[in-house]
Amino acid sequence: MTANQLYEQIKAKRSCLCVGLDTVLEKLPATLDGEQYPLFIFNREIIDATADCAVCYKPNTAFYECYGAWGWQQLEMTVGYIKEHYPEIMVIADAKRGDIGNTAARYAKAFFDNMPCDAVTLAPYMGRDSIAPFLEYKGKWAVVLGLTSNASAADFELDGDLYKKVIGTAMEWGTPDNMMFVAGATRPEMLAGIREICPDHFLLVPGVGAQGGSVAEVAKHGLNSKCGLLINSSRGIIYASSGSDFAGAAASAAGSLRQQMANIFE
Amino acid sequence: MTANQLYEQIKAKRSCLCVGLDTVLEKLPATLDGEQYPLFIFNREIIDATADCAVCYKPNTAFYECYGAWGWQQLEMTVGYIKEHYPEIMVIADAKRGDIGNTAARYAKAFFDNMPCDAVTLAPYMGRDSIAPFLEYKGKWAVVLGLTSNASAADFELDGDLYKKVIGTAMEWGTPDNMMFVAGATRPEMLAGIREICPDHFLLVPGVGAQGGSVAEVAKHGLNSKCGLLINSSRGIIYASSGSDFAGAAASAAGSLRQQMANIFE
Repeated sequence: MTANQLYEQIKAKRSCLCVGLDTVLEKLPATLDGEQYPLFIFNREIIDATADCAVCYKPNTAFYECYGAWGWQQLEMTVGYIKEHYPEIMVIADAKRGDIGNTAARYAKAFFDNMPCDAVTLAPYMGRDSIAPFLEYKGKWAVVLGLTSNASAADFELDGDLYKKVIGTAMEWGTPDNMMFVAGATRPEMLAGIREICPDHFLLVPGVGAQGGSVAEVAKHGLNSKCGLLINSSRGIIYASSGSDFAGAAASAAGSLRQQMANIFE
Repeated sequence: MTANQLYEQIKAKRSCLCVGLDTVLEKLPATLDGEQYPLFIFNREIIDATADCAVCYKPNTAFYECYGAWGWQQLEMTVGYIKEHYPEIMVIADAKRGDIGNTAARYAKAFFDNMPCDAVTLAPYMGRDSIAPFLEYKGKWAVVLGLTSNASAADFELDGDLYKKVIGTAMEWGTPDNMMFVAGATRPEMLAGIREICPDHFLLVPGVGAQGGSVAEVAKHGLNSKCGLLINSSRGIIYASSGSDFAGAAASAAGSLRQQMANIFE
């Protein structure tokens, strides 16, 4: 998937919504009790209910790994379902991987060969070796952590503006067609500074909703001429209702976020 | 497992060897063709052949994830086998995870509840939130990336001595009984500086063997009064022979490394 293809989809849907599939067994409605693959069934319903609003799905691997091979299988089923039924929608494996070169190549294989993900989130601490193998896949993306949405981003990322150094350095390794950066919505004013460093790159913006960030603030500081934003919401959409009407409630919550994005596309 | 228990094992075996289980299908001997779980069978043979020399096994998750749920299952079987047959040997999941708090808690569940690992390697970029959930498990360990063994550690870790800041900050979050640091053998002279920061912590030292580091140099700069080192070798041991004699060759390679460690215990 190219940046232009992503932008065309954003314009067509009038949405830059990424839905985070952080699915946990304890929060599934009782109607899914007894299913062989409940995480997948839940995700499938959420996907079908939100695909008209979403340009991206982002399953976080932690939520599947914690159920072992059975969870990993349902992650594979989820990614496979999206790319079979909605091939135009981007799938980002939110894995935050990062390792030495020959090991990073194995992670790239896991997400790009063994699963048809379009993108993987990556931790930059170990430097270029840990990112480069992902950039060798044509049409695939490395989503590098820049400024994250959590409170303790202050420990290292904000220390001496490390996040700016990371973004400025990493952008030299790829292009706006195969690299984007994570930039949290919980510090929206800093998005403007990030935009100065990388005016052309897409930013994946978590932290809207449950974590407190607002769409309007993100758009104000983060937009570029081709939108350049993927705004993620996870819990606010997938757990909009805890009952059997979860899919309809997710559709409403996703629609409401798209409504908040409307001024982006005026 | 406590630091003292680990040290007692090190003294008893006169070894601080960690064997990295970075197992790939393409390198398995032809005698394993047709096995349902070849990665596990290979690992089991390696483990049985090296358990008298090794105080630690370290499977890297990338090498299992790249085979999807089937790979993950064999990772689980490997960890289960070690803790069933050699419960005194430490198992470190080399996963280099790092995410916001509620997600990090899921990773902790994956490695400490769903699998009986003793420790997980963790990336520090996102700060305390991403490490703290692992420290809540009694007897388990967070192994935080300090200075890694790859060339591009220079990109960020060495910039302004970030690795020293990371180690100095992270050590405040845990104790020498539940936290250790990754400190690569490819820059052994820097181990002395790391020892000044954290004199009492264990260091997990990759990079000996295929990556070029030497046991003598690591010991010279990294030892403390309770050894304080876990020296890892992966490819040099598990691929010591590509034939059906792989287990015997691994035993010899592990024995040879233990021999190099002998002066540590004089």
